[in-house]
Amino acid sequence: MEHPPDLKITLIGAGTIGLSFAAFHLSHLSHLSASHVTIYDTRPNAESYILESLPQFYGTHSPPLLSNVRIATTLEGAVSGAHIIQESGPENLAIKQALWAEVEKHAPETALLWSSTSGIPASLQAQDMTDKTRLLVVHPYNPPHIMPLLELVPSPDTSPNVISRTEEFWRQRGRVPILVKKEITGFVANRLAFALLRESIHLVDSGVVSISDLDRIVESSMGPRWAVAGPFKSYHAGGGPAGLEGFFNNIGQTVQDCWDDAGKVNVGEGWEQKIFSEAREVYGAVDTGERDRITRRLLDVLAEEREKGRRK
Amino acid sequence: MEHPPDLKITLIGAGTIGLSFAAFHLSHLSHLSASHVTIYDTRPNAESYILESLPQFYGTHSPPLLSNVRIATTLEGAVSGAHIIQESGPENLAIKQALWAEVEKHAPETALLWSSTSGIPASLQAQDMTDKTRLLVVHPYNPPHIMPLLELVPSPDTSPNVISRTEEFWRQRGRVPILVKKEITGFVANRLAFALLRESIHLVDSGVVSISDLDRIVESSMGPRWAVAGPFKSYHAGGGPAGLEGFFNNIGQTVQDCWDDAGKVNVGEGWEQKIFSEAREVYGAVDTGERDRITRRLLDVLAEEREKGRRK
Repeated sequence: MEHPPDLKITLIGAGTIGLSFAAFHLSHLSHLSASHVTIYDTRPNAESYILESLPQFYGTHSPPLLSNVRIATTLEGAVSGAHIIQESGPENLAIKQALWAEVEKHAPETALLWSSTSGIPASLQAQDMTDKTRLLVVHPYNPPHIMPLLELVPSPDTSPNVISRTEEFWRQRGRVPILVKKEITGFVANRLAFALLRESIHLVDSGVVSISDLDRIVESSMGPRWAVAGPFKSYHAGGGPAGLEGFFNNIGQTVQDCWDDAGKVNVGEGWEQKIFSEAREVYGAVDTGERDRITRRLLDVLAEEREKGRRK
Repeated sequence: MEHPPDLKITLIGAGTIGLSFAAFHLSHLSHLSASHVTIYDTRPNAESYILESLPQFYGTHSPPLLSNVRIATTLEGAVSGAHIIQESGPENLAIKQALWAEVEKHAPETALLWSSTSGIPASLQAQDMTDKTRLLVVHPYNPPHIMPLLELVPSPDTSPNVISRTEEFWRQRGRVPILVKKEITGFVANRLAFALLRESIHLVDSGVVSISDLDRIVESSMGPRWAVAGPFKSYHAGGGPAGLEGFFNNIGQTVQDCWDDAGKVNVGEGWEQKIFSEAREVYGAVDTGERDRITRRLLDVLAEEREKGRRK
């Protein structure tokens, strides 16, 4: 994707995700003088709320310039002239359908239309649009100004050109856009994380381990391991010369035994109060600033190592 | 645990896990001149095999001294006089039962007895022992000379004193020993990892995402996140002021939808050849030295940050 010298990105919705994306885009815009980020939000006093809240998403890297921010007061004003329109509004199908039908009337024909939804597929969101080829889900891993992953989930109608321009946009900014090939429930990252969360809840609920001990287990094993090599690569390496097949030859029975014995907790089945209150007791209010600062350090190491690997 | 000036650790079994533990212990022994690590293995030419293979587990930190290694030629010679006896032999119940019954005859009464098994509980391993109070599982996350986690899984007979001396030993060496309160199938870390692996296999098998894209998703989201804050802490933070309860209030339905839709693949159901061969094509032979070097860098950052947190 060739970026115009006056790149205009419009963000619809100034909740946590919208502002985090705004901070990310601003920190990658500041050298393009005529470029800016427009934010549109229907809450009262949106302008003062946005200008006050944004800086908390900046972190320590290259603080962006508020002079590159525009606050729009109408949807039409927000989207006309935009190259990219990214919505992070409420998770409500009717609202999103109405939004895109209205956006379509005022946005340039070539504008990329992205939804940050964690659950409502583009094919449903686009139902009231005339041209359904331009919309896709661009689902971040929270918070997007820190975490590199973007799951790109097109509908069957999304055009290949829109997909490749979207991939290119994120790649040029050092991010990791991954194409999800089907509009599956929860996309990929959340399905994986929630599978592990389900077993975590089961193990705490059945008295095998405490919440803080379970977290320490993950922090001192899978977390750092999977930051370097994902599950397939890890187990492929763990199988020796025979790879993943060797791994399953060696301990496939243990894997199956764990699967057979896995917890099947469901939301609303009564484990909630014990788990929620233990989490409150152990963690209180989490200092996400501290967490994000350390996460950035790890991501910097990983980016540096990837760069080294590329230069080899 | 007070360490004697002549700490003697005996390792039974010189496979990958045994040698990795040997490298770890040696790198923490070298300043104690009269201390040593004894290795016992029944393979032919054990001595030359061990002395040739050990150095590949050293890494770059403080290379240990081979002069602190003793190679035993009999089990009796290996365990008599030892303070700690750690077995990393074949995953075979009969072998382990016979081993511990024999070890018990020759080891000092106060010696700690640890099994590295990933699946055979201490209560079964101890069945032919007279004194069952001294044995527990000390399950590493591979490779133990790099990864900080040790799952301590006592049997109902293991004495509290043995458990606390074991915890203390690992804590003094900067490791993360976590007590697992029940002898559950697969213990905790593998159950969690295998839950995520099951969903990973399902998503690749059903064409949603490729093996390398799934790994890149985990490497750029959950991996670095969970290295800093485990799943409960992460979602507790993600729920804002209402914590984990707020998280489930917000997206509990999406979580349940993912659980309802989760894959139920089993070993031997036919997905294997596609998945194994895709892993081979993408990764070939994984450079675990490179992986371990990068993992050490991340772990060093995390240890430094924990140290900072403690000094606050």
